[in-house]
Amino acid sequence: LSILFESIRKPTLLIDREKTQENIRRMAEKARLAGARFRPHFKTHQSAQIGEWFRPYGVSAITVSSVDMALYFAAHDWRDITIAFPVNIRQVQEINDLAQRVHLGLLVESVAAVRRLNECLTGAVDIWLKIDAGNRRTGIHWERLEEAADVAQAVMEAPLLRLRGLLTHAGHTYGAGSLERVCQIYAETRQRLDDLRRALAARGLPPLEISVGDTPACSRCPDLSGVDELRPGNFVFFDAEQVEFNSCGWEDVAAAVACPVVALHPEREKAVIYGGAIHLSKDFYQRGEQRCYGLVCLPEGSRWGAPLEGAMVSGLSQEHGVIHLPAAHRHKLNIGDLVCVLPAHSCLTVQVMKEYLSLDGETITTLN
Amino acid sequence: LSILFESIRKPTLLIDREKTQENIRRMAEKARLAGARFRPHFKTHQSAQIGEWFRPYGVSAITVSSVDMALYFAAHDWRDITIAFPVNIRQVQEINDLAQRVHLGLLVESVAAVRRLNECLTGAVDIWLKIDAGNRRTGIHWERLEEAADVAQAVMEAPLLRLRGLLTHAGHTYGAGSLERVCQIYAETRQRLDDLRRALAARGLPPLEISVGDTPACSRCPDLSGVDELRPGNFVFFDAEQVEFNSCGWEDVAAAVACPVVALHPEREKAVIYGGAIHLSKDFYQRGEQRCYGLVCLPEGSRWGAPLEGAMVSGLSQEHGVIHLPAAHRHKLNIGDLVCVLPAHSCLTVQVMKEYLSLDGETITTLN
Repeated sequence: LSILFESIRKPTLLIDREKTQENIRRMAEKARLAGARFRPHFKTHQSAQIGEWFRPYGVSAITVSSVDMALYFAAHDWRDITIAFPVNIRQVQEINDLAQRVHLGLLVESVAAVRRLNECLTGAVDIWLKIDAGNRRTGIHWERLEEAADVAQAVMEAPLLRLRGLLTHAGHTYGAGSLERVCQIYAETRQRLDDLRRALAARGLPPLEISVGDTPACSRCPDLSGVDELRPGNFVFFDAEQVEFNSCGWEDVAAAVACPVVALHPEREKAVIYGGAIHLSKDFYQRGEQRCYGLVCLPEGSRWGAPLEGAMVSGLSQEHGVIHLPAAHRHKLNIGDLVCVLPAHSCLTVQVMKEYLSLDGETITTLN
Repeated sequence: LSILFESIRKPTLLIDREKTQENIRRMAEKARLAGARFRPHFKTHQSAQIGEWFRPYGVSAITVSSVDMALYFAAHDWRDITIAFPVNIRQVQEINDLAQRVHLGLLVESVAAVRRLNECLTGAVDIWLKIDAGNRRTGIHWERLEEAADVAQAVMEAPLLRLRGLLTHAGHTYGAGSLERVCQIYAETRQRLDDLRRALAARGLPPLEISVGDTPACSRCPDLSGVDELRPGNFVFFDAEQVEFNSCGWEDVAAAVACPVVALHPEREKAVIYGGAIHLSKDFYQRGEQRCYGLVCLPEGSRWGAPLEGAMVSGLSQEHGVIHLPAAHRHKLNIGDLVCVLPAHSCLTVQVMKEYLSLDGETITTLN
């Protein structure tokens, strides 16, 4: 085993730089072919160093999910930032600070938020109407034309708000299943936003852009054309859930948590690792009847190998991970060994781990 | 509203000092009545400042869940620390450092781990055999006498390992339901450990202590006697799940996350808050058919009030929380208001939030 693995003493978030850069290259190319602006979501990696890996592919506009993240990337020379979250007007002071320094995009979905913004803003910002195109998390429902028109009109009347476009996150592609269904959601989302755009234009509103972007659709659908902007985030590392969704192969997953083995229970096909909710997050996806918190790989040379067939992290408490380890793999693990867990959800894993170690030995920090 | 609430701009972990101290007082008193050492688990609060609140109740021995946490509390003058996690032999260097400075307790559950420890340790440590008394997460199964005897014997043969006792975490009291069932699990756990202790004594092993402790049993069962040590942790703040389990009333919950309201969807009885998985953790408990990520309270004066009946955090993504808000409460919330969420699981919420604000205005840090 490489000296890198030998040096690891406790749960450590590893990233594979080559895979990450290849994931970025591939998505930038897809956006180019679709004729769309690539505005990747940086909430997945949250790292100024990894942000730099996007610049060679012409990326200059980014998406973040919080004001704090916008401040962090603004401090690292990003000058065009959309905060893809319904604006939190309690942070208007920080928003005003940002608006002085970067080209800032904000999301609104109510007249109340527009009015409060208008009262407090001191600099100009772009405004995107957050649209619910079927995901039902939040946003103005795509069929509520009157509501969308009222919010758009309120934006038009606010001197520092520049109405830019319609933005959605079609998060219902997660777990949608077949490629056909994912592409159907993508086409449907685009159509709904386009219909709304036309209906608003018919009321005399200016031309609006359309911004979409979720990793399952952006990874899987061959044709992403017909939108102005793509904002996927998770693709930079992918994760076990995206493997399950066929957004990628396991070979494309660029992040894994190295965890020491602390107990073995072969009589019930289990192993216990030092690696729990505080290292992987408590997120999971359903794998048949079971909750899967991650896939289990072994170090091989200076990288991690293929997931052990049938093995997975089947339970997590604060510091413990319980691995379901089929008997065929039993001989591969001893107390004190490391396993590399491909997390269920890489965004939240990065959030809890706060720091990476690249396979070539560099420590990479995040905003946290 | 108090100036404290007015000053909050983004998700903020609040604690109520009085409630916390009362929770500590009550549990210390229960341990005293049971004739057991109170060795509270500090993994819940993870804070040197909050640790000090235990000292007036005679607490001098503590439990932690990682080597890093042990190093942190050792640096804050705690001198008797058990790391209640199967020993991670990859951290033996830090363990040796700790063993020089504090009375250190470690958990083992295999001969392999004992041998590796024996090869690497440079200072004396207490050893607890980690027993699975029915929880089935990890540990030596209570009926595997031969296995327990082999591990105990290996400990006896290692000069720097002092065999101290049998330790378990009966985590299956979580969600056990009735008071009767919780107390039955407590009694059964005690009996299983006592039986194993006697069987080991019959083989000539020295007298062993018994250490137990989970918040549901320690809070609910009137009689905790018959053990040497109690190690509950969550009781310091409790949380929504413990309210659900009847370990406490909502009035005893001492931690809440203040979150700004960013969107309202009255047509489907939903509100959206800035407060997601990165603030509350992705942990939940089942409330009937639904996943509950937290209960929803409103600020009242300088504290939070009772949970809104029928309301709960029903969904979480990275930064968003979706609240199910029955129509009767609709008029109580506006965009830009704060809600106070009693988290599903306070330990993980503390872990992700990293810092508290006490209701009397003090910023309280953790090890993170």
